Amino acid sequence: MKKMLIDYKNGKISLKEILEEIKKLPYKDLGFAKIDTHRKLRKGFPETVFCKGKTIAQIIAIIENMNKENHNILATKANEKIFEAVKKKVPQAEYNNDAKMIVIRKEKIKPKKGKILIITAGTSDIPVAEEAVVTAELMGNRVEKVYDVGVAGLHRLFDIKEKIFNANVIIVIAGMEGALASIVGGLTSKPVIAVPTSVGYGASFKGIAPLLTMMNCCAEGVVVVNIDNGFGAGYFASLINR
Amino acid sequence: MKKMLIDYKNGKISLKEILEEIKKLPYKDLGFAKIDTHRKLRKGFPETVFCKGKTIAQIIAIIENMNKENHNILATKANEKIFEAVKKKVPQAEYNNDAKMIVIRKEKIKPKKGKILIITAGTSDIPVAEEAVVTAELMGNRVEKVYDVGVAGLHRLFDIKEKIFNANVIIVIAGMEGALASIVGGLTSKPVIAVPTSVGYGASFKGIAPLLTMMNCCAEGVVVVNIDNGFGAGYFASLINR
Amino acid sequence: MKKMLIDYKNGKISLKEILEEIKKLPYKDLGFAKIDTHRKLRKGFPETVFCKGKTIAQIIAIIENMNKENHNILATKANEKIFEAVKKKVPQAEYNNDAKMIVIRKEKIKPKKGKILIITAGTSDIPVAEEAVVTAELMGNRVEKVYDVGVAGLHRLFDIKEKIFNANVIIVIAGMEGALASIVGGLTSKPVIAVPTSVGYGASFKGIAPLLTMMNCCAEGVVVVNIDNGFGAGYFASLINR
Amino acid sequence: MKKMLIDYKNGKISLKEILEEIKKLPYKDLGFAKIDTHRKLRKGFPETVFCKGKTIAQIIAIIENMNKENHNILATKANEKIFEAVKKKVPQAEYNNDAKMIVIRKEKIKPKKGKILIITAGTSDIPVAEEAVVTAELMGNRVEKVYDVGVAGLHRLFDIKEKIFNANVIIVIAGMEGALASIVGGLTSKPVIAVPTSVGYGASFKGIAPLLTMMNCCAEGVVVVNIDNGFGAGYFASLINR
Amino acid sequence: MKKMLIDYKNGKISLKEILEEIKKLPYKDLGFAKIDTHRKLRKGFPETVFCKGKTIAQIIAIIENMNKENHNILATKANEKIFEAVKKKVPQAEYNNDAKMIVIRKEKIKPKKGKILIITAGTSDIPVAEEAVVTAELMGNRVEKVYDVGVAGLHRLFDIKEKIFNANVIIVIAGMEGALASIVGGLTSKPVIAVPTSVGYGASFKGIAPLLTMMNCCAEGVVVVNIDNGFGAGYFASLINR
Amino acid sequence: MKKMLIDYKNGKISLKEILEEIKKLPYKDLGFAKIDTHRKLRKGFPETVFCKGKTIAQIIAIIENMNKENHNILATKANEKIFEAVKKKVPQAEYNNDAKMIVIRKEKIKPKKGKILIITAGTSDIPVAEEAVVTAELMGNRVEKVYDVGVAGLHRLFDIKEKIFNANVIIVIAGMEGALASIVGGLTSKPVIAVPTSVGYGASFKGIAPLLTMMNCCAEGVVVVNIDNGFGAGYFASLINR
Amino acid sequence: MKKMLIDYKNGKISLKEILEEIKKLPYKDLGFAKIDTHRKLRKGFPETVFCKGKTIAQIIAIIENMNKENHNILATKANEKIFEAVKKKVPQAEYNNDAKMIVIRKEKIKPKKGKILIITAGTSDIPVAEEAVVTAELMGNRVEKVYDVGVAGLHRLFDIKEKIFNANVIIVIAGMEGALASIVGGLTSKPVIAVPTSVGYGASFKGIAPLLTMMNCCAEGVVVVNIDNGFGAGYFASLINR
Amino acid sequence: MKKMLIDYKNGKISLKEILEEIKKLPYKDLGFAKIDTHRKLRKGFPETVFCKGKTIAQIIAIIENMNKENHNILATKANEKIFEAVKKKVPQAEYNNDAKMIVIRKEKIKPKKGKILIITAGTSDIPVAEEAVVTAELMGNRVEKVYDVGVAGLHRLFDIKEKIFNANVIIVIAGMEGALASIVGGLTSKPVIAVPTSVGYGASFKGIAPLLTMMNCCAEGVVVVNIDNGFGAGYFASLINR
Repeated sequence: MKKMLIDYKNGKISLKEILEEIKKLPYKDLGFAKIDTHRKLRKGFPETVFCKGKTIAQIIAIIENMNKENHNILATKANEKIFEAVKKKVPQAEYNNDAKMIVIRKEKIKPKKGKILIITAGTSDIPVAEEAVVTAELMGNRVEKVYDVGVAGLHRLFDIKEKIFNANVIIVIAGMEGALASIVGGLTSKPVIAVPTSVGYGASFKGIAPLLTMMNCCAEGVVVVNIDNGFGAGYFASLINR
Repeated sequence: MKKMLIDYKNGKISLKEILEEIKKLPYKDLGFAKIDTHRKLRKGFPETVFCKGKTIAQIIAIIENMNKENHNILATKANEKIFEAVKKKVPQAEYNNDAKMIVIRKEKIKPKKGKILIITAGTSDIPVAEEAVVTAELMGNRVEKVYDVGVAGLHRLFDIKEKIFNANVIIVIAGMEGALASIVGGLTSKPVIAVPTSVGYGASFKGIAPLLTMMNCCAEGVVVVNIDNGFGAGYFASLINR
Repeated sequence: MKKMLIDYKNGKISLKEILEEIKKLPYKDLGFAKIDTHRKLRKGFPETVFCKGKTIAQIIAIIENMNKENHNILATKANEKIFEAVKKKVPQAEYNNDAKMIVIRKEKIKPKKGKILIITAGTSDIPVAEEAVVTAELMGNRVEKVYDVGVAGLHRLFDIKEKIFNANVIIVIAGMEGALASIVGGLTSKPVIAVPTSVGYGASFKGIAPLLTMMNCCAEGVVVVNIDNGFGAGYFASLINR
Repeated sequence: MKKMLIDYKNGKISLKEILEEIKKLPYKDLGFAKIDTHRKLRKGFPETVFCKGKTIAQIIAIIENMNKENHNILATKANEKIFEAVKKKVPQAEYNNDAKMIVIRKEKIKPKKGKILIITAGTSDIPVAEEAVVTAELMGNRVEKVYDVGVAGLHRLFDIKEKIFNANVIIVIAGMEGALASIVGGLTSKPVIAVPTSVGYGASFKGIAPLLTMMNCCAEGVVVVNIDNGFGAGYFASLINR
Repeated sequence: MKKMLIDYKNGKISLKEILEEIKKLPYKDLGFAKIDTHRKLRKGFPETVFCKGKTIAQIIAIIENMNKENHNILATKANEKIFEAVKKKVPQAEYNNDAKMIVIRKEKIKPKKGKILIITAGTSDIPVAEEAVVTAELMGNRVEKVYDVGVAGLHRLFDIKEKIFNANVIIVIAGMEGALASIVGGLTSKPVIAVPTSVGYGASFKGIAPLLTMMNCCAEGVVVVNIDNGFGAGYFASLINR
Repeated sequence: MKKMLIDYKNGKISLKEILEEIKKLPYKDLGFAKIDTHRKLRKGFPETVFCKGKTIAQIIAIIENMNKENHNILATKANEKIFEAVKKKVPQAEYNNDAKMIVIRKEKIKPKKGKILIITAGTSDIPVAEEAVVTAELMGNRVEKVYDVGVAGLHRLFDIKEKIFNANVIIVIAGMEGALASIVGGLTSKPVIAVPTSVGYGASFKGIAPLLTMMNCCAEGVVVVNIDNGFGAGYFASLINR
Repeated sequence: MKKMLIDYKNGKISLKEILEEIKKLPYKDLGFAKIDTHRKLRKGFPETVFCKGKTIAQIIAIIENMNKENHNILATKANEKIFEAVKKKVPQAEYNNDAKMIVIRKEKIKPKKGKILIITAGTSDIPVAEEAVVTAELMGNRVEKVYDVGVAGLHRLFDIKEKIFNANVIIVIAGMEGALASIVGGLTSKPVIAVPTSVGYGASFKGIAPLLTMMNCCAEGVVVVNIDNGFGAGYFASLINR
Repeated sequence: MKKMLIDYKNGKISLKEILEEIKKLPYKDLGFAKIDTHRKLRKGFPETVFCKGKTIAQIIAIIENMNKENHNILATKANEKIFEAVKKKVPQAEYNNDAKMIVIRKEKIKPKKGKILIITAGTSDIPVAEEAVVTAELMGNRVEKVYDVGVAGLHRLFDIKEKIFNANVIIVIAGMEGALASIVGGLTSKPVIAVPTSVGYGASFKGIAPLLTMMNCCAEGVVVVNIDNGFGAGYFASLINR
């Protein structure tokens, strides 16, 4: 801007030209804000495409557009069919079958020091957990995962006490009654991100039961993201991991 | 009946009389079934009056009627005003202010051997717990109570490991997220009766959150009663305590 | 421990060695608690695998691992495809098509004296009931079953009065409005475990209607488990059957 | 109309006048329909004022207006304060304290032959029942009432078998789990009108539990009205009583 | 009974025998009540099988058993596959494809005088309406049907004013917002049975919206049955049709 | 009418004939009201068929009937199969695959001056948006559409500031949390019609989340239509566009 | 801006100064947008204070601040106590006791030509209606109001047919089942704004029932605002009134 | 432990004594874990008492007990009456009337560098915000607060862009539709903690609406705590503030 103003004073650009430029400023500036944001994020952050509800044609178009830049690309809730279509256009695309995620690695992320521990209550929660794993790793985090800790067998939790103490951030993923978040929250002073899953049946109501459990968690230091939102948990964990 | 039939054969009662008696039989018989039931129950069981929604006059009438028999009487959800009115009519009536229960002791119940352990997650759950305590004790059970165990401070739970192992039946009472039931259920092989309470705020929705948590409890051996139903838990615990 | 301390005093093990052992104690101890628990349970208790949400590979892996020990194995919510895969690895596996359960019998359970009576309101509730039957029988219980008692035809209930009086524990399984639990609860002094099912349509809301009915049951002595949770009911019934 | 057309042909009224009249016809006709309706209803039917949410001034104004005609007047959900205000204006107004209803009797209704039986599950359901009683009686029905039949004590229901058989229409009023409607529905071939009440606590959710129970009633011949709507049940019962 | 008592007095049957008989009395008596009930019902009433959730084998078994008696048989929620299986065993079985009902006509029902009018709001409500039609006709009622009356085009309703006035009972079937029940209820003094349907999308929540609408209907004389329960409406209408 | 009355006075028609005519008047008149309504609507308005829940035969029948008149025809929620069946009968039928709508253009609508701006939060909301587009355009409106504006990238919203200022009416279509309606509502003084969509997962509960968001919108000037009801939004927008 | 740039070129302001100004531009510009918005609104629009949840001190502070400008001020959900406190500070404040609104008139609004018709189903809906009336009138609209039209007495609706035809916009306010919106929507081609109210009891669930009814309204041209949001309806009606 | 073992070897303590000590180890060890946790927390962390549902006597007892140690004490959801009772016992107790919190400062917390920004949508959200402020400040954080930013006036948000960029963690507190969280989340790359409040009316359902909005937030980096849980947000913010 400064340069432009000097150019203008020096007559290199006309009053009309500089007025035109200034008129666009708010957007540019706002764009700049976003760019600034992006710059920060780029240090450890993929762009993401939420595939559910989009046609394959739309997804391909979005990814090809993104692919022009040098950022990592992450596509969530992507089935195998979508992946195959993407792979044809972008051969280096990788697929995590558990997480239903497509990853296109284009830049090296500088790894963070702190570790993120991802714990699931059951085996069936793994797809959601893997979503968090893929996201957090792509953002440069070291991730440790412990699956199927359960509440019914609390001793399994004590076996991982060391891991809990060594982690910087903890993600707890649980369906059914979701009590694991309360228990981990009660054992640690680290920030805990709780992810309710739609695993269960009957009165778990596709995730409402663990969602409410986690919302009402009486242990301090526990926050909640949407049902099955492993991506959101991995993302937030990365934001607060140091 | 047998006697009546012999009397009839012997002409002591007429055909018309015996027909009249037989006509009433189904009800009597059903009554008998209930009486039989009652006989069993009477060994350790109070009659109960659910006061909520009844006028004081109605409550007094019911209790005075019950008072003619030699059973213990229990009135639930009774405020102090109701108690005062009852006490005027039945001076030996006692009041448990926490449980909001009136007890009229009229017979000695033979104590059972097994112990019922009643655990609450918080201090605010005590009124519901006391309902269970009063009920279970009146039915002849030895009751041990541990209040405010919490989930956030799991170590408090381990302090009572001995009590958990020594109990025959365990009642877990919790509001907010109600996770305590899952944890206790995971630590013991004893039957656990979970009571959700309306303690909490926001997304606990007056007990829906712990109700769902307990319903979906992934530890085996846990059953649930209605929100704030300490009486029901105490009653059922007594049924299965040996 | 005592032995180890004496060994240590006698110089058989070093200070470092004994310190190492003591450091592991909490976990061992906790493990011990569980082992103790297990010992009790083993007398009448199968390990269970909840198949829903797990891949066949995961289920096979879990079962093969369990199969190394001499316990009975129970897999719930298992479809035929899962069973076939399991059978290839563990030929003695049996399948209950109604209950959608796989059973692997490896030890003889000493039968209990008391009987568990399992009643369903309708024919459509049978799959849930069979889950309870398989579970309870595997845990050493004598099970009697009466299906399709209904509420609309109360007389069918009276036909089984004898069975109700002879049972030690009663499981009532009902969808739609679930009123059967209240009625049975009103007729008996035995503990009743109520299982709401997702049978019905419209305002039964996949089991919410009978769940609420059973929760609010005004007959004493009735507790509730999750919608369609026949396994949980069978398990709890076994815990309290003598 | 016929007369008017003849008058018009005879020149007694002008073309303009008769056109004006005809223009209003649809409304008149509709009004006539209503008047016809009213005529029928008047034989046994009070006009009703729903007091909740209206100011006393509004209620007085409505009732004074109604009072100009010779119909019985019924005001529902009226507290004592409203009654006192009404009584000052209409001295013959009567108050049913249980039903919270004001009745102003102005015409004699010819009594119907059939009997309406009104059954409540508990004592706390009486206010709703009395609403039905007052309504049905004012509409010329013979009403029999049996309160506090309960489900927990089914034998009380059998004691009234005769009454059930002698009734033309049955109203079943129940809170908590509302199972009484299913049971009565299963015992009779008479039409049953079920009224859920807000009596109960916890998971009865102010009447949702019995509403769902009654909606899903598997006994045929049962219909449902709104929670606590004793008036609606009494009204409908009268419509179908012969 | 009387005869048996005289036989007993005369020594034709022993004391033991008569005691045995009397012991069974409650059930017999109850059975009798049902038989009595059945006798009444038989005059205009089919037995019904609710097919949803039953296996074809179970349905066939139930129907073959029913088929031994001389009653009409009605099977609801039956798909074509079920029908074909039934037809093989009971060739005179008929199928109503809209209503998804199987009818087996075995006795002639004496027709009632009064007419039942069945109105639907939309074309999509027809399957539910046909369920009511089949049921009511099989029970001996004259049924008139008017489909797709809508609320958006109230004039269509006025076109059937005559039919409304000529009917004895009216069934209103509507999905979406279900307002048609209120409107018909406001226009007539005949009993109205409202059936909410799961027709609609979004915030109709599979029938909850019209269910609530109908429940809160401010026109008197309207009662409600379960969502999509055309059978229940037809049945109840028949009970109150004269 | 006037003519008929003169004819009657002149003896051209009898008293009986004119009485018969007048008897039908209310319906005619009402019909007239609708015709009047229709006349207005016809200026810019298609007739619509809601296809969901109707059989193809029914849809064809309705459309063929409508096709006799000279109005545009619009069929909503129509899948491709329906379209093909319609096209066979009405060859000029067009299909919008995104909107799942069939359009049969039969009259030219005079275009309105004002513009309707249709904004979606995401790509997955496009089908609902296209429903609004097709509807509004068929009713003679100029429509501008901006898809995938998002909330997460507010700057995209500012890029369309001009379009917001130039529109007469704005339709905002959003799933997930639906916050876009609040933001657009806060930026403009134009009427905003908010359409929640069922796009999302977990706690969006098929559109409940954005529905509530939009309902509680604290920006003035925002109204809401049913979940996924693009047609309703397009229709209402047309009504208020000048 | 132009002037500033010329000043800068002429040296009247420095490079640093102009850069500082430009940095603030996005916010200024945005502010301008709002001011522009305000200018338009000011022609017929009050500022509003939502009183619920604010302390009296806060309300006074906000209103005193607003009072410095020459706009009309509107405070909603204000009880009498709040009004008295406001009146002490701003004596010309007026209070509408039904609407619970405070109005401070400071500028004359040029009246619009079109009329807004406000219809309520019942007397109890008047407070919500008055909120709409006060809002719309303050914004310069001519308002006609018809209260207590009901659905049960459809003829009352026909009495106001003229008013419906003469209105430009119609607001329909209804609690209980809220069917009035559908009916009015079916009778008119004018835009209808539906306001559900919390009037009713039982299954009206404080406004959920009419909210769903209105959401699912099958008549086109109906949109919905929040429960009891008379203000929002009046505001929106004013936006679209010509 | 080491010392004890050496003492034991040296005969200073007996085998029985050391065995007794070791038996307590698991609990001690766990206690140690908690103490370790506590040590960390103590650097910036108050102990908290949740007052709701506790009697004043209970609260006093708990606080007096806590007061023996040298930690800061925080009591939440405390009304003025509770405060007065506490102040009598602990004179240095302070009260924040907005937050309904009692603070007893007993140790100096070393301030953190990063700033926590707390933003509310409305004035009515202030009590919840103040809860977060008091909590975060007591834990050693620098807190900046901006209240009443609103969504309806987005420009107010841009006025605080600087503050958003300067904060380390952002807490967004909003009732009604809660859209502010999405907007702030879209503008920043900082972690955002969203707190839904029960502010609003009608379809905000005491906080359910903003809870769902925030749960479904399509901007990344947003997590949610319970409705009205300002304390939890402040606590978590402190955990992740650097």
